[in-house]
Amino acid sequence: MLLEAIYHRPKLNWCYAYDEHSVHLRIRTKKNDITTVATLAGDKYAWSQTMKKVPMNKLTSDELFDYWECEVVPPHRRLKYGFQLEHGEEKLWMTEYGFLHEPPSNPDRLFEYPYINPVDVFKTPAWVKDAIFYQIFPERFANGDASLDPVDVMPWGGKPERDNFFGGDLQGVIHHLDHLSELGVTAVYFTPIFSATTNHKYDTEDYMKIDPQFGDMDKLKQLVSLCHERGIRVLLDAVFNHSGKTFAPFIDLQENGEHSRYKDWFYIHKFPIAIENGIPTYDTFAFEPLMPKLNTANEEVKAYLLQVAEYWIKEANIDGWRLDVANEVDHQFWRDFRQVVKKVKPDAYILGEIWHESSTWLQGDQFDAVMNYPFTHAVHDFFVDQICDAQVFANAIGRQLSRYPRQANEVAFNLLDSHDTPRLLSKCGDDKRKMKLAAQFQFTFTGTPCIYYGDEVGLTGGEDPDCRKCMEWDPAKQDQELFAFYQQLIQMRMTYSALRSGKFTFLAAEAGSAKLVYAREDSHNKIIIIMNNSDQAQTIEVAVKEEHWENLHTNETLCLDSGGVLQTELQPYGCAMFRVLKS
Amino acid sequence: MLLEAIYHRPKLNWCYAYDEHSVHLRIRTKKNDITTVATLAGDKYAWSQTMKKVPMNKLTSDELFDYWECEVVPPHRRLKYGFQLEHGEEKLWMTEYGFLHEPPSNPDRLFEYPYINPVDVFKTPAWVKDAIFYQIFPERFANGDASLDPVDVMPWGGKPERDNFFGGDLQGVIHHLDHLSELGVTAVYFTPIFSATTNHKYDTEDYMKIDPQFGDMDKLKQLVSLCHERGIRVLLDAVFNHSGKTFAPFIDLQENGEHSRYKDWFYIHKFPIAIENGIPTYDTFAFEPLMPKLNTANEEVKAYLLQVAEYWIKEANIDGWRLDVANEVDHQFWRDFRQVVKKVKPDAYILGEIWHESSTWLQGDQFDAVMNYPFTHAVHDFFVDQICDAQVFANAIGRQLSRYPRQANEVAFNLLDSHDTPRLLSKCGDDKRKMKLAAQFQFTFTGTPCIYYGDEVGLTGGEDPDCRKCMEWDPAKQDQELFAFYQQLIQMRMTYSALRSGKFTFLAAEAGSAKLVYAREDSHNKIIIIMNNSDQAQTIEVAVKEEHWENLHTNETLCLDSGGVLQTELQPYGCAMFRVLKS
Repeated sequence: MLLEAIYHRPKLNWCYAYDEHSVHLRIRTKKNDITTVATLAGDKYAWSQTMKKVPMNKLTSDELFDYWECEVVPPHRRLKYGFQLEHGEEKLWMTEYGFLHEPPSNPDRLFEYPYINPVDVFKTPAWVKDAIFYQIFPERFANGDASLDPVDVMPWGGKPERDNFFGGDLQGVIHHLDHLSELGVTAVYFTPIFSATTNHKYDTEDYMKIDPQFGDMDKLKQLVSLCHERGIRVLLDAVFNHSGKTFAPFIDLQENGEHSRYKDWFYIHKFPIAIENGIPTYDTFAFEPLMPKLNTANEEVKAYLLQVAEYWIKEANIDGWRLDVANEVDHQFWRDFRQVVKKVKPDAYILGEIWHESSTWLQGDQFDAVMNYPFTHAVHDFFVDQICDAQVFANAIGRQLSRYPRQANEVAFNLLDSHDTPRLLSKCGDDKRKMKLAAQFQFTFTGTPCIYYGDEVGLTGGEDPDCRKCMEWDPAKQDQELFAFYQQLIQMRMTYSALRSGKFTFLAAEAGSAKLVYAREDSHNKIIIIMNNSDQAQTIEVAVKEEHWENLHTNETLCLDSGGVLQTELQPYGCAMFRVLKS
Repeated sequence: MLLEAIYHRPKLNWCYAYDEHSVHLRIRTKKNDITTVATLAGDKYAWSQTMKKVPMNKLTSDELFDYWECEVVPPHRRLKYGFQLEHGEEKLWMTEYGFLHEPPSNPDRLFEYPYINPVDVFKTPAWVKDAIFYQIFPERFANGDASLDPVDVMPWGGKPERDNFFGGDLQGVIHHLDHLSELGVTAVYFTPIFSATTNHKYDTEDYMKIDPQFGDMDKLKQLVSLCHERGIRVLLDAVFNHSGKTFAPFIDLQENGEHSRYKDWFYIHKFPIAIENGIPTYDTFAFEPLMPKLNTANEEVKAYLLQVAEYWIKEANIDGWRLDVANEVDHQFWRDFRQVVKKVKPDAYILGEIWHESSTWLQGDQFDAVMNYPFTHAVHDFFVDQICDAQVFANAIGRQLSRYPRQANEVAFNLLDSHDTPRLLSKCGDDKRKMKLAAQFQFTFTGTPCIYYGDEVGLTGGEDPDCRKCMEWDPAKQDQELFAFYQQLIQMRMTYSALRSGKFTFLAAEAGSAKLVYAREDSHNKIIIIMNNSDQAQTIEVAVKEEHWENLHTNETLCLDSGGVLQTELQPYGCAMFRVLKS
């Protein structure tokens, strides 16, 4: 056993309360190095009377490691624990003080999970596990009210530039709610809709006001209410890392310099504020002078932004917030933000924009989820850019699953593109087969999938601003076949809870191979998904125990001999899904 | 290079802000596996223009790993970073997405330290780095006011039992402040002094009242003020995990059951409350019916306890809190606690009682430090019980130093015994030589050392209650030689800042050996400490570069040839300290 590979640390993703009764324990070992792992767990204050051995199962793997997991329900909410590792004749115990070659005799030197305090349990909103998200960039979705158009509005469908406008608005979204319902989405994430100068509205001028190009509070209320009637939840974008340059406090600062009563609302290095050698003398988002960074630790700023967070939930009844540049805002702010938001709406979804590992934010005190870009990258590498094989892909996915507590994985925001990336179809070189295969993985994976507006009808576009084209509303120009594909995919996910929250297991993901096989299984169903991620047709065989299967695409049933083989011929970039039929 | 051994994860002890300008980065590698490690660091938004290579130094090691560290000062407070690892011809890069055999070409896949938000920076009180702590168990320190004695008081110096009383009180401490000053301590930690039924007072009856056996608010104020005049700070014990059974809300609960307005102040499983098969039907500390666990998530309880926390700082001017059973109280409570405490006294010391790894509490939002029992265990194993060699000891210490951010290590509460353990001298089998050697390590190590009352005059005692004997005040019965030893040790630590906060490095700690050599070095001094942890005299040689040295015990100066050897003959359990003399 390679000791250097074995890793466990209290708390984080390694030892956490899943709910008020259960603790999940995880340990990492070198890949394929150890055959049997168990937790020894007992009450902190009565170890010898209560100690039990709990087998651990392989949760996932990555390039170098296996990750094992078990669930323990401690009768008095507190634990001592250690691990027992076995491979062949070799036996080893791991404690907080290192490895032992004999069972631990001193319980004081075991690990501890001190006590499940209900208030610390990381609770994520249940509805998100079952949601299908749709991202709308409001300026480009639909122009429903020409009277709101900016003066220099361009004809719908023109070429998107960094600074042009097409007149999309909230009424436009209202007009097209049928489109969302037909598609089958159950939640919409809107990029910012508060008053700002740009077309993307990430430079907020007034956090308490809908941008007049988009509508007003009544229009938003109407939109949210109509969405709710259809079972669609609404997420708005909270741009709290920075304001716009036209935000009143920043204007005051520009006018009054050091004497401004808002001087501590921002991070000013030097008055008067200026741009020196391309770098603002005040902190900004990136080096963007338009976006001065807010001092979210300042009590006034904090009170103001928390009031904003509360206001739109209370007034417009929105269902959560997506948090822009979330990792550059202080943790204390987000902790208070969660308290405020969950108090007014306990099942609000708090979604941080973080492109990197986000463990620190996913412990129960800050976010429910982050925009899962590591997932995006893995899917792009394998399905889209095809620069890695099935094994590398499975390792990337496995690593991602190992990083966070289960309740965070369950509500991960799994996107394949956004207003910040090229569109999926364009990334796929307009090859719909690749796009569909990637989407099929997205919709059969743990976490909540999101469709970027227009992807479902074949909208294309490269890097920003090209990925922010106007939505195509001419049915003749919409890719109806693609729309039907997404409809079915959503339907499939909604039909089978196993696809949403069942246990996820890779069955085949080999080095040098473009073949991917995995299973999703819950108490209702077991489904096997088989993918051919290559431009050659191929026949794929999967050894299975069960006899009776349904092909979910054709609805044919199959009867295999026991100990049989599921065999399927897949077109280039083809996918098949089989469901076990209970006999 | 053994990839499985290499570990880094954003935040925690691996990447944290040390102050508002500096970020510390650490990475773990297999022991002696890699010769050169560097961080590649640059601005998140201008990677290619700003990327720099920063060499990393070995911070510490343990049984299996080396830990490397460097400091980076990002001009715009934000970082992208990766690691470059070298051994011989082999070169490797580590990113958030795994290992590369070429320098990372895609900065998006590096690690990120998003932004140093000043409010998130973990600031620990500067005075603690320089403090010498002394722990007092008030019932057993000194009886200064017989009028407060409980009716059944025992004659001073009798045998301590679980439930007997000897009349120690605050006036007794006041009488003996000269003892503390002569010894040289600069801070006192008092176990609980609030009204309670037991002699240890861990079953609080009234958090707002000094136990009448100990005194009253005026007496505490007087004590704190007299301490402050002498440069001695005062820490009280906050027993917030549980109350006593005579705490008014719990009495109300016993009387009114389900109808009590305090029923949500505790965790009650069943009314009427009872003990069933030895287990209370309400949550308690351990299984102790006397100590009902408080529901610190209840808003009333929280408000009450936070008021307590604030009250004693404001009223009595105490300098911090030691938190009993700290890890069983919820994190949200401690976050609010820190806010309240640091607001009234920004340099208050918040010290949690946690016997286990405590990373989760040492991130800046909760505690400043924990009672460093892993340190205690390491010192006991090597110096006291002698069940391990110098190498195992150095590994245990190294592991401990790697676990927490530097600012936490600097104020770690390093104790060798307490009211919860046998006394150090008794653990040493009354062998003062062993005791002294252990203390010399404690007083020349990073973190704040604490003496348990009476250790300095040779008080003995086994497990609780025997470790809670009355303080010996008869000079004839006090071990004056031991007292002088502690005085000198304290004096030495106070004289040389290198012993308090200089860089700590093991120079010799070999397998099978009882010889320990280590260095402490800061900008003022370099000191080498040489220990013979065996019952045989031995001559120890240490190769050094410097020529001129002072023996800190004898004040002799030594002149060595350059490239010379420090040679010292050490008695059994002897210790020598040499200081480099600047030429």
